[in-house]
Amino acid sequence: MNKIAVFPGTFDPFTKGHENIVQRALPLFDKIIIAIGKHSLKTPLFTITQRLRMIEELYHDNRKIDIQSYEGLTIDFCRDHHARYLLRGLRTAADFEYERAIAQVNRKMNDQIETVFLLTTPEFTPVNSTIIRDILRHGGDASPFLPDKMKLYDDEQ
Amino acid sequence: MNKIAVFPGTFDPFTKGHENIVQRALPLFDKIIIAIGKHSLKTPLFTITQRLRMIEELYHDNRKIDIQSYEGLTIDFCRDHHARYLLRGLRTAADFEYERAIAQVNRKMNDQIETVFLLTTPEFTPVNSTIIRDILRHGGDASPFLPDKMKLYDDEQ
Amino acid sequence: MNKIAVFPGTFDPFTKGHENIVQRALPLFDKIIIAIGKHSLKTPLFTITQRLRMIEELYHDNRKIDIQSYEGLTIDFCRDHHARYLLRGLRTAADFEYERAIAQVNRKMNDQIETVFLLTTPEFTPVNSTIIRDILRHGGDASPFLPDKMKLYDDEQ
Amino acid sequence: MNKIAVFPGTFDPFTKGHENIVQRALPLFDKIIIAIGKHSLKTPLFTITQRLRMIEELYHDNRKIDIQSYEGLTIDFCRDHHARYLLRGLRTAADFEYERAIAQVNRKMNDQIETVFLLTTPEFTPVNSTIIRDILRHGGDASPFLPDKMKLYDDEQ
Amino acid sequence: MNKIAVFPGTFDPFTKGHENIVQRALPLFDKIIIAIGKHSLKTPLFTITQRLRMIEELYHDNRKIDIQSYEGLTIDFCRDHHARYLLRGLRTAADFEYERAIAQVNRKMNDQIETVFLLTTPEFTPVNSTIIRDILRHGGDASPFLPDKMKLYDDEQ
Amino acid sequence: MNKIAVFPGTFDPFTKGHENIVQRALPLFDKIIIAIGKHSLKTPLFTITQRLRMIEELYHDNRKIDIQSYEGLTIDFCRDHHARYLLRGLRTAADFEYERAIAQVNRKMNDQIETVFLLTTPEFTPVNSTIIRDILRHGGDASPFLPDKMKLYDDEQ
Repeated sequence: MNKIAVFPGTFDPFTKGHENIVQRALPLFDKIIIAIGKHSLKTPLFTITQRLRMIEELYHDNRKIDIQSYEGLTIDFCRDHHARYLLRGLRTAADFEYERAIAQVNRKMNDQIETVFLLTTPEFTPVNSTIIRDILRHGGDASPFLPDKMKLYDDEQ
Repeated sequence: MNKIAVFPGTFDPFTKGHENIVQRALPLFDKIIIAIGKHSLKTPLFTITQRLRMIEELYHDNRKIDIQSYEGLTIDFCRDHHARYLLRGLRTAADFEYERAIAQVNRKMNDQIETVFLLTTPEFTPVNSTIIRDILRHGGDASPFLPDKMKLYDDEQ
Repeated sequence: MNKIAVFPGTFDPFTKGHENIVQRALPLFDKIIIAIGKHSLKTPLFTITQRLRMIEELYHDNRKIDIQSYEGLTIDFCRDHHARYLLRGLRTAADFEYERAIAQVNRKMNDQIETVFLLTTPEFTPVNSTIIRDILRHGGDASPFLPDKMKLYDDEQ
Repeated sequence: MNKIAVFPGTFDPFTKGHENIVQRALPLFDKIIIAIGKHSLKTPLFTITQRLRMIEELYHDNRKIDIQSYEGLTIDFCRDHHARYLLRGLRTAADFEYERAIAQVNRKMNDQIETVFLLTTPEFTPVNSTIIRDILRHGGDASPFLPDKMKLYDDEQ
Repeated sequence: MNKIAVFPGTFDPFTKGHENIVQRALPLFDKIIIAIGKHSLKTPLFTITQRLRMIEELYHDNRKIDIQSYEGLTIDFCRDHHARYLLRGLRTAADFEYERAIAQVNRKMNDQIETVFLLTTPEFTPVNSTIIRDILRHGGDASPFLPDKMKLYDDEQ
Repeated sequence: MNKIAVFPGTFDPFTKGHENIVQRALPLFDKIIIAIGKHSLKTPLFTITQRLRMIEELYHDNRKIDIQSYEGLTIDFCRDHHARYLLRGLRTAADFEYERAIAQVNRKMNDQIETVFLLTTPEFTPVNSTIIRDILRHGGDASPFLPDKMKLYDDEQ
């Protein structure tokens, strides 16, 4: 049986921290689906289409990685894609509390789906998309926090 | 003197975790007022009227439990209802930090009112109204997290 | 039915923070038993007898407060003294995690016993017995952290 | 070289906790710039102008303290004002996680700027601007949490 | 390449929480080595031999699970057993901080070894070996917290 | 007035994290006294003499840094050395809770002494002396976590 993991998030934008989690999780799974949730953010910086495109370009030559967007419950998306695993990165203790609640509720709703956590490496611990959006909105240089090969698409493109 | 406790919250919706706290606190108090705050949520799922109705039906045969909605400061509501106790459930360490700030400010404003905390039982720890609203909005089945006897009123009713 | 609470601890020594919790919990219960556990500390500063004596003198004129020492499981002590409530003070998020584990295990072993938490008031939050023992061992003045009326018994007495 | 620190925040309103941090940090620096960020809050209680005026009146006779408002990245503001230090108060563990992320990202973007933390004193730990705004919006008395000499300007003025 | 995970711990004793982590991790790996560290505890309740025997009996019919004891660094044990994965259960935010430090140091010493975390299910969150040892030492009934099929070996055996 | 800071700790051993805090704090103070507490650890790896020697060699050419050992209360040591500041590094939220208690008690005992916190940089966050002692005791290579120029003295020397 194939080991398929879904790596869900808003990825607005996808960061070096996200890239690092995907890279390290690859040996553990046969396929990783990076799943961009359509719902969460009130005022996104990048459109879903831009996010899809940026991440697709990053992984276009990796056959084990799929990029998709989705609506609805994450566990329904997993089930529809025959994924038994949810992949999540843990950065801080605050993250942990939140992730635990989500994972435990997911498990109660569908106990066939297991959430697997990797820790972010220390140098990426402070990197989160909210702070990066703040930097980009103020015209700062966010490149130290973004994947080296990722091209940012701004709203004009 | 009667021991009256106010159990304040947004209860959007009232969960199995809330029900469990009320049940376990009953022996400690002569009366518990479940007090639905009118203010907090930006985009509630249930109206105040729906929430009142759902909780009232749940406890209609329990004379020690009152259901009310309120505006304004919680400590003013307590004073107006001769309640010396605020009842709160604690789920996580993150909860704790937030609850501590509120309780300590309340106490500074009115040191006659004591906040009493019970811990949620482990199986209800991940259950919070935010996650449940998210499930309901995506058409998921939230019944494992809601009181067995509670009937949900949706917006059309 | 009488509402009896057990307030368990090592109380080496009993602090202003402990005194404050007892004081604020008094209206909620008919009797509070301050229960000094005989086990925990490897190198106590005060003997059990000294601790008993110090706390007894503090509350000798309060008929609602009993002081006892005990061995064995706290929930067995509660059951033997017909106490349905365990009283605990919460200071920090770290406290909370520990107290939650203990309370949930206790509840699993005896679901008739409920743990009730009060928060320490802000000025007593940093006060814990470990730090006070450290001050006393180095000959410092710990009186700002101890009950005003409590007399310390040192080892020579 | 002058030791200049920027104390950034929304200060909506400036609290006794903020005042306490500034007071205690003064001996450490040659100048402290209280910098009111123009961005963050969705529904501020006081306008930037009101906040500037309230804090300026509080410190009008202290030559070591400057009050300014700013837009853009905090580290750019620091650089423009030759400030090598960011001053922040820490209240809770939740604060800490957030502050750590911000400070570490700032340092990565400009390693010439050091963030220096002081702890709030225990009695001010629960005081945060969000709770105070809530009190003020409900017509409560927030004066125990505000600097003794600070005059509140409401929207009509 | 075989996916081998080491599940290290003191397991004094092995709990229902440990059993649950192993059970849920099995589909993810080809082999799990439960590795009992010989060092950590000052006053163990069960000897290494007893712990080995108790866990071996529990899993004697599962060919994917090995039980071993070890001394020295955990990452050296992993390398010697061709294990690329360390398996750990996360219970609380306090756990998380500790586990993160260990995992990040391990990774710095050997970046070929990845630590994979699963969350304990809510009902096992409060169960830790320290509390269970305390129950057993006081003659309490710890069976609700231990694997159903596990036989306890006491010191006399 | 000279700005003197005491950086207290057990430093068993002094790590890259400690070195980083001292380095970054230097511009803020006129003198930093690295103060090795004689009390805390039950089973130290290095003797006080070895620790003094290792740190002295590291900073022998820096006139702003003093190395001393001390017994007794840290605030008494500060007062005796005319130090108005205590310098501490913060790594994790767990650290924070502990440091806050100590700092607030210190301040209550002597409000002339201010504790100043710097955050460890992300790559040093997981580095703590306990983990390093564990590595060294098991014959592992701890050099990635120790100051590049520091020479370890083992017990035979």
